Amino acid sequence: MRKLRAPFFEIGPKNYIFGKDVLKLAETAEKAALEFDVDILFTAPFLDLRAVADQSERLFVLAPHMDVLTPGRGITKILPESVKAAGAAGVMLNHAEHPVDYRTLKAAVERAKELELLTVICADSVAEAKAVAELHPTVIIAEPSELIGTGKTSDMNYIRESTETIRQVDPDILVLQAAGVRTVEDVYRNIAAGADATGTTSGVVCADNPHKTLTDMIRTVREAFDKRTQ
Amino acid sequence: MRKLRAPFFEIGPKNYIFGKDVLKLAETAEKAALEFDVDILFTAPFLDLRAVADQSERLFVLAPHMDVLTPGRGITKILPESVKAAGAAGVMLNHAEHPVDYRTLKAAVERAKELELLTVICADSVAEAKAVAELHPTVIIAEPSELIGTGKTSDMNYIRESTETIRQVDPDILVLQAAGVRTVEDVYRNIAAGADATGTTSGVVCADNPHKTLTDMIRTVREAFDKRTQ
Amino acid sequence: MRKLRAPFFEIGPKNYIFGKDVLKLAETAEKAALEFDVDILFTAPFLDLRAVADQSERLFVLAPHMDVLTPGRGITKILPESVKAAGAAGVMLNHAEHPVDYRTLKAAVERAKELELLTVICADSVAEAKAVAELHPTVIIAEPSELIGTGKTSDMNYIRESTETIRQVDPDILVLQAAGVRTVEDVYRNIAAGADATGTTSGVVCADNPHKTLTDMIRTVREAFDKRTQ
Amino acid sequence: MRKLRAPFFEIGPKNYIFGKDVLKLAETAEKAALEFDVDILFTAPFLDLRAVADQSERLFVLAPHMDVLTPGRGITKILPESVKAAGAAGVMLNHAEHPVDYRTLKAAVERAKELELLTVICADSVAEAKAVAELHPTVIIAEPSELIGTGKTSDMNYIRESTETIRQVDPDILVLQAAGVRTVEDVYRNIAAGADATGTTSGVVCADNPHKTLTDMIRTVREAFDKRTQ
Repeated sequence: MRKLRAPFFEIGPKNYIFGKDVLKLAETAEKAALEFDVDILFTAPFLDLRAVADQSERLFVLAPHMDVLTPGRGITKILPESVKAAGAAGVMLNHAEHPVDYRTLKAAVERAKELELLTVICADSVAEAKAVAELHPTVIIAEPSELIGTGKTSDMNYIRESTETIRQVDPDILVLQAAGVRTVEDVYRNIAAGADATGTTSGVVCADNPHKTLTDMIRTVREAFDKRTQ
Repeated sequence: MRKLRAPFFEIGPKNYIFGKDVLKLAETAEKAALEFDVDILFTAPFLDLRAVADQSERLFVLAPHMDVLTPGRGITKILPESVKAAGAAGVMLNHAEHPVDYRTLKAAVERAKELELLTVICADSVAEAKAVAELHPTVIIAEPSELIGTGKTSDMNYIRESTETIRQVDPDILVLQAAGVRTVEDVYRNIAAGADATGTTSGVVCADNPHKTLTDMIRTVREAFDKRTQ
Repeated sequence: MRKLRAPFFEIGPKNYIFGKDVLKLAETAEKAALEFDVDILFTAPFLDLRAVADQSERLFVLAPHMDVLTPGRGITKILPESVKAAGAAGVMLNHAEHPVDYRTLKAAVERAKELELLTVICADSVAEAKAVAELHPTVIIAEPSELIGTGKTSDMNYIRESTETIRQVDPDILVLQAAGVRTVEDVYRNIAAGADATGTTSGVVCADNPHKTLTDMIRTVREAFDKRTQ
Repeated sequence: MRKLRAPFFEIGPKNYIFGKDVLKLAETAEKAALEFDVDILFTAPFLDLRAVADQSERLFVLAPHMDVLTPGRGITKILPESVKAAGAAGVMLNHAEHPVDYRTLKAAVERAKELELLTVICADSVAEAKAVAELHPTVIIAEPSELIGTGKTSDMNYIRESTETIRQVDPDILVLQAAGVRTVEDVYRNIAAGADATGTTSGVVCADNPHKTLTDMIRTVREAFDKRTQ
């Protein structure tokens, strides 16, 4: 698998859309990824994940969660091997809508590493960002829970402090700053502030034209990153 | 969609196998369904469900659970619309490994009916079989929890009492007697005792030759049913 | 222990108040129980339960839940033996704020009966009232979840249908009609409609004068019942 | 409230005993605390907590958990104000039998501090010990989950590494080393290794003579500490 590189963008439609609409959104993400040379984490609903992976060359498809178990019982659990076999490149863990306790999180990261799945862990406070950095995931999504879906962005203090804290623990962890991204300006601001990546759900799926918005945001990631790193 | 008819058989590999092995098992089930004219409920892991549905003409593919929500947030929830869009014919609810409270179960059945998904509810005791019969699902799987995976079958009293109780509440509900099915003899016995269907997980996936065992069990369903209804 | 008799009244302060305020409310309930010869179910917060039981002669003190376990591990679980030893007369189960699946509910009722604890099960729909009646609890609280705390009362159809349904399954089960009770008129109406009991949380704890309101409601239970049964 | 000082000992009977037996065990702990001048954290079952607090002068009584809520609904939740009002000195959080996600843990610590409750957080791995140290609780109980109740003690590497890691983050946090303590030798070893405290459940409640064992362990805490700090 290719190595995930900055700058990148995370888009996950949660359950706002399903079936064909997810596949179309993934197609748009794929095109923009190629056009602007920006890596994309596409967090797919469980039931659409394999189809997204099958049609995509360039996307890093993520499962939104996985459970800690090995093959056997657990009829409704998400088996890590099943995530891998479906074509996922990685797994998101500890989303604000599905937080997991630290022991389980640690065990899930270990299972993911065994299976060579990328690990993308969500963190809320700076304290939590530091705590999950100790697990050395591929990516940390730093996002104050109280801002998710509100259109209110993280303030610059939070962005700088959480990014620095993570890098002090492990400079190899990629940092995605996410909360409240609604516009291309929000995207620009997060990348300009030093994040490796940004992302959104509602900023795209609730936009008047989700496909155009997604493309514009991905273009902006590239522009902001190039400007910053010139 | 075709109407589900007796006799039928339920096979769900839980998380014992994943990916291609699930697809192969579904293929075997499909062939046997056609050869012996037996309907099959195939309960697929979430990540394999769509691929199973795509390759199958004859199987009734079930999701092992779904949540009660409408499109929107809930990144790790199983959206009913997503189950339908993936090609499922129905949904299993209240499995012993994922029991749900009665209010949620009632709401899930209502959502399934809106989406024209078959509802297959698991029940443990005779009291529970009666309780869930009041929700008028398509199928009730009567299976004393303490026997699941043990190879110990339900006794005749339980089979008769639970079947009769369900039919008294609603004669249109199909009754599947399941617990501890390991051999073709167990299959024969359950159908002979008056059940519309039987099924197993471990009886197939832990068998020396799962594909042959599955085929033999499906053939036996037909034989036992024909004998009983001559 | 005395046998619980109609008419009775259930009051549980949930977590609206704590410590001494719970003890004072229990004192008021005790006085009114004696004055109007009305039995009272007092559902006490876990941490206040024993103190309420210690100071009360007449109240039937209930735990708001208990878990299904026997002595051993489970540091945060509510052990049935512990409920009994603290002086509770019974246990409430399946409250809308803590629903339990049917298997667990059945097992909890069995544990309660072993320990000679009264069982008070909450039900939402008429279908659920019928389902839990099969477990033969001492009391069923019939209360459409969507009305709890709203001040909107159950309609007469629901009250009649749920009461009759429960009595058809088991005429020994006492029926408490509860939803949205805010005023003495609501209390009167529920008892007049044939319920054995009624009750409230927010109708008392959010009233301008909770103690006077509680006393008035208990007096009204007696008056409505005497009128109905003259 | 008195300040908790090293050396101290934590004993919590979980649900192994209930009612009067809990009160007797607390009495024994109280006597030993006075005799050997050792502080005791006594983690009481919810239903016995207030009675333990009422009879004890010297014990630091802990609730085994509390929820993050303010007065209102939540009939089965453990309200922080209720814990305080019942006489608890503090609260245990994140026990292996009731782990909580990091956001909830952080919020619970904040609520506890508002109410001047001691915070005693359990941690499993060294990574988790470091993570929870960032929340600056009063005490961290370092205990590899897989050893709880086994009688197998933590190895010296774990004890040293977890203790040092916590002290590097915040030297004011007291460190309790706990896993698998069964004998007075285990107690001695943990204190000698530099822990501020140790503790056990099964080592006491499953002993032939729990009261004598508890007293002996508390005496040993004093002896080991005096020896180490001479």
